[in-house]
Amino acid sequence: MTVTTSRVRVRYAETDAMGVVHHAAYIVWLEVGRVDWLKAQGMDYREIEASGISLAVSGLEVRYASSAVFDDEISVETRMTEAKSRRVRFEYSLRHAEYERLIIKASTVHVPTTKAGIAVRLPAEWLGRLERLVAAV
Amino acid sequence: MTVTTSRVRVRYAETDAMGVVHHAAYIVWLEVGRVDWLKAQGMDYREIEASGISLAVSGLEVRYASSAVFDDEISVETRMTEAKSRRVRFEYSLRHAEYERLIIKASTVHVPTTKAGIAVRLPAEWLGRLERLVAAV
Amino acid sequence: MTVTTSRVRVRYAETDAMGVVHHAAYIVWLEVGRVDWLKAQGMDYREIEASGISLAVSGLEVRYASSAVFDDEISVETRMTEAKSRRVRFEYSLRHAEYERLIIKASTVHVPTTKAGIAVRLPAEWLGRLERLVAAV
Amino acid sequence: MTVTTSRVRVRYAETDAMGVVHHAAYIVWLEVGRVDWLKAQGMDYREIEASGISLAVSGLEVRYASSAVFDDEISVETRMTEAKSRRVRFEYSLRHAEYERLIIKASTVHVPTTKAGIAVRLPAEWLGRLERLVAAV
Repeated sequence: MTVTTSRVRVRYAETDAMGVVHHAAYIVWLEVGRVDWLKAQGMDYREIEASGISLAVSGLEVRYASSAVFDDEISVETRMTEAKSRRVRFEYSLRHAEYERLIIKASTVHVPTTKAGIAVRLPAEWLGRLERLVAAV
Repeated sequence: MTVTTSRVRVRYAETDAMGVVHHAAYIVWLEVGRVDWLKAQGMDYREIEASGISLAVSGLEVRYASSAVFDDEISVETRMTEAKSRRVRFEYSLRHAEYERLIIKASTVHVPTTKAGIAVRLPAEWLGRLERLVAAV
Repeated sequence: MTVTTSRVRVRYAETDAMGVVHHAAYIVWLEVGRVDWLKAQGMDYREIEASGISLAVSGLEVRYASSAVFDDEISVETRMTEAKSRRVRFEYSLRHAEYERLIIKASTVHVPTTKAGIAVRLPAEWLGRLERLVAAV
Repeated sequence: MTVTTSRVRVRYAETDAMGVVHHAAYIVWLEVGRVDWLKAQGMDYREIEASGISLAVSGLEVRYASSAVFDDEISVETRMTEAKSRRVRFEYSLRHAEYERLIIKASTVHVPTTKAGIAVRLPAEWLGRLERLVAAV
């Protein structure tokens, strides 16, 4: 459960005139992976937001290794690599689901905020849970 | 002012693997035209929403006449063709800005709602103003 | 097989500042439904395009009945309602997968074209197959 | 001309349920800035692609400093910070056009490729021109 794998199938709208997936479309799939990872830990992102906390993205890094085309099935491997009260970090590997060819490596950093965008600390109970998951990677 | 013209330049991200603009990208440009039309009437959509009313889209029709490619400049001609207390309607013509070739014709129907999505009547003052603009088309 | 059901889960990127799915995001899901429908008939859209034919969208109609929010699971019911050598038409019903509440009804019309965008006739064999599927609805 | 400034106005479709611009939308604006920068140097990206070369994105880094909301006008400041035969790098600062508040800092790395995605060297004439622009920053 410390590493989760999500599947996305490339939509035509996600391709561009180069004939491959547009480089911004992958960012949306990272989000899919992150939401699934949290859900696997019993942390529904809808409930997190309902509790008044958002995990605002404060940093993003992507290294593009190869490209994907329409209708490819992509596996999004997600793990949490840092959990602090004011900062969590996820890492992702996206591969072609069939051939296992690496497509991108990426990481995102997040800051817990209120709805109004004010940075806050993660509730201690969540933090404890996340710290154990990071340690297990 | 009853008909406004907005300009958009095709972004690479808005193209697809057919080499042309993806058919869903145009829908976002209709929104650009609508916001500009309202602004030209002195009705800032941010202020409309701040007052507690949204113009939720309840209907959409598009006829695609020709295609556009990356970096084309498109003119979005917008007018309001119906203004009732519970329903307004916009019509749009999108043309290649340079050659005037028609790209799409479209219309959208909108229902005034609260933030919570409950249908409401347009404030009488706005309705009066919009009715005069429709009559003038 | 004449009616197929696809599942999509609402991504955060598909929502807007009203807190619900942006009205253009649904258009992309119609495409998901269409691709799945064709696949269920043994017609892989990648192979269709590889054969030199695209099904360019020439018309689109959407009636928005209710809204969806982040992480909702949506069922996209797709059927073909017209199959002619120069025009095919799909109809879609999108419902909340759990509550079966209708979200949108939509239709798209498509014109077979070459890669260069020239309208052509559907190959007779495909047309025959599609006509039988329309008759069966 | 070594630093260009593009303007984008936030579209409603680019916001998300947090009420602010979705973090992936900025990536598309970087592309707008890049295309404008190249155009200011007399290098139309359409012509670059027509010559058979694409500048495929191989790396992306974003640091999110503050958020933007619907209808904000954003200035996208773009410069080239590295020009080699097999790798060019752009840097971007996005600010609120009116208040000059920093929104994001970003960089992208690009690899010249053929249409088929094979890495190639930049034509010597282009490289010479780009090197002078980098030196001037």
